Amino acid sequence: MIAEQGEILAANEEDWARGREQGTSPSLLDRLKLTPERLVGIAEGVREIVQLPDPVGDLLETIERPNGLYIEKRRVPLGVIGIIYEARPNVTVDAAALCFKAGNAVVLRGGSSALSSNRRIVAALRSALSSTGLPADALQLIEDPNRSSVDEMLKLNGLLDVVIPRGGASLIQNVVKNATVPVIETGAGICHTYLDDTADYAMAEAIALNAKVQRPSVCNSMETLLVHADFAGKHLPALAEAFRAANVELKGCAKTRELVSTAIPAGDEDYATEYNDYILNIKVVADLDEALAHIRRFGTMHSECIVTETQAHADRFLQEVDAAAVYHNASTRFTDGFEFGFGAEIGISTQKLHARGPMGLPALTSTKYRITGSGQIRS
Amino acid sequence: MIAEQGEILAANEEDWARGREQGTSPSLLDRLKLTPERLVGIAEGVREIVQLPDPVGDLLETIERPNGLYIEKRRVPLGVIGIIYEARPNVTVDAAALCFKAGNAVVLRGGSSALSSNRRIVAALRSALSSTGLPADALQLIEDPNRSSVDEMLKLNGLLDVVIPRGGASLIQNVVKNATVPVIETGAGICHTYLDDTADYAMAEAIALNAKVQRPSVCNSMETLLVHADFAGKHLPALAEAFRAANVELKGCAKTRELVSTAIPAGDEDYATEYNDYILNIKVVADLDEALAHIRRFGTMHSECIVTETQAHADRFLQEVDAAAVYHNASTRFTDGFEFGFGAEIGISTQKLHARGPMGLPALTSTKYRITGSGQIRS
Repeated sequence: MIAEQGEILAANEEDWARGREQGTSPSLLDRLKLTPERLVGIAEGVREIVQLPDPVGDLLETIERPNGLYIEKRRVPLGVIGIIYEARPNVTVDAAALCFKAGNAVVLRGGSSALSSNRRIVAALRSALSSTGLPADALQLIEDPNRSSVDEMLKLNGLLDVVIPRGGASLIQNVVKNATVPVIETGAGICHTYLDDTADYAMAEAIALNAKVQRPSVCNSMETLLVHADFAGKHLPALAEAFRAANVELKGCAKTRELVSTAIPAGDEDYATEYNDYILNIKVVADLDEALAHIRRFGTMHSECIVTETQAHADRFLQEVDAAAVYHNASTRFTDGFEFGFGAEIGISTQKLHARGPMGLPALTSTKYRITGSGQIRS
Repeated sequence: MIAEQGEILAANEEDWARGREQGTSPSLLDRLKLTPERLVGIAEGVREIVQLPDPVGDLLETIERPNGLYIEKRRVPLGVIGIIYEARPNVTVDAAALCFKAGNAVVLRGGSSALSSNRRIVAALRSALSSTGLPADALQLIEDPNRSSVDEMLKLNGLLDVVIPRGGASLIQNVVKNATVPVIETGAGICHTYLDDTADYAMAEAIALNAKVQRPSVCNSMETLLVHADFAGKHLPALAEAFRAANVELKGCAKTRELVSTAIPAGDEDYATEYNDYILNIKVVADLDEALAHIRRFGTMHSECIVTETQAHADRFLQEVDAAAVYHNASTRFTDGFEFGFGAEIGISTQKLHARGPMGLPALTSTKYRITGSGQIRS
């Protein structure tokens, strides 16, 4: 890929110029942009994936039956994986490398505004496959820029074993609503941090700020801060000041606004919004029960955190909150395959089937039972 | 349930009488029928499920990170499970009991011809839930006999975590094609047994007969027998005679018909048919490669078997055949949760996502990451 960087950067320049003409937003243009440095980073990512242990063949379970049958459950590739994503050429490389590493074929459908880049990148990847003796057709790019090609892809039962959408909420919902092939839903995160009455103030401030502002645009960042009334009475004005110093716009319930005069009103619609931006809802709650009820109502089962020094409250929170990742005294921003030590991440599943939370290579595998007998028949 | 058997049997009698009036087939009427003995058997099945170990809370993985975060991955209930099935009142009890045992709520939609029975059974189960302090609403029966209620159920994203269809091919395909909630596909099995050139004749005959006739109506029974040409030349006439003695109608390729005069021609359409009946396709193949190619083309990735004394062939077959269960020298009829020692079975998954092959209680669970920190934030 690095060998072909001239062609790839030229193709990317085409996409970029077209995007600029069409008035694409600066943040989208930035995601679309490739540079020699970014290509080096992308290639480095592939080398890291190559170094990861191969999950295929892993022995997960053995069963010896009284009739002498010996059963092994082993990991096998999922098969053919479809990835539907937006105008981010880095995803083209990353998704393909992860799928290959787990032994899968892959069909990519990237955003049409990155089509020239993706064509060149896929050509480079296909020739890399061929040069190692693997079939180039294990990687396919859907080049048709029309939406109808996505709709068709979503109905390829029997040909695609799974489709994984990577991108914004509307892309993901389109896939979930229209696919008849199995889907792994990723993405939406309305994450909460609850500051309990016994929370340590310094820790609470550090965790809450980190969850909101370290990278507000991502799914594991915080959208709503829940604060126990006792803690709020003592600390909310100072905490609000810290958020305002970090350029965070504050919205709040009536009690919040009594303590924080600059907060504007927050209602159910706000609590149900994934801002992905420097905006935060604050709600003062009477106790842990009210915090749990709020999360049950507005959470998207992604990442939820309690800051408390009361172990019994931490235990209840970790037990009762139904989310992919539940935290005691740590930032929700850690919900990430690399931070969990997986060495890779294909996305963060927000569904309960197959994989939940950060997905490493094992999420791109299935299993097979291998049964060895000596003539056993069923009676 | 046994305590209310009078009411349940009376309700079942209503369904049965209505079915007979409407000309329902004898085999469907038999599946619909409850008797005092069958109720005892169903109740016994529930008691066995109660005795199984509870999968919820199982610790699957622990991760200690260099920054001090401690991560546990534990089993949690899937949530709300929808089951769509046919006119078999025993499934009402069995599916509900399995879902409850794994901590889930359940929404049942049984065949409309069993509606009276299901109403009474669900009333009994709901009062049993209440009497143990559990919410009766954890079990719901959709009573609307119209198809539209199924269509609506299949779109309840956010309310149902998964739908599992149990029944014939058309029911399953309707669910797969129309659901936007996650589905676990169960069912269709076009299973093969391949008799290699070194297969032991006595073992081959016993396994092939068992795979076909021990219970032809089920998904793990054999539909097509593949026979190595050398083995066929020596043994196929005798083997065909054994099948004919067991009342199996034989279809075959041209080479089969040279050796077995009573076989009628088999073509691609036959190889692609799940008979679930006393009918068998026979195809003579040149070698293991041709057998593997046939299975790749016509198999439904359910259960596949090789009978051979050549270990290298067995190894290749177990490795290369892409199916939920692959067998060496044992009948495909063993693909079953009870036969695998799971103590229960909610169905046999024929998809690769989430669960593959016989599904016991763990297939009715999801996972959750519980992360404990001491103030960690992401930098």
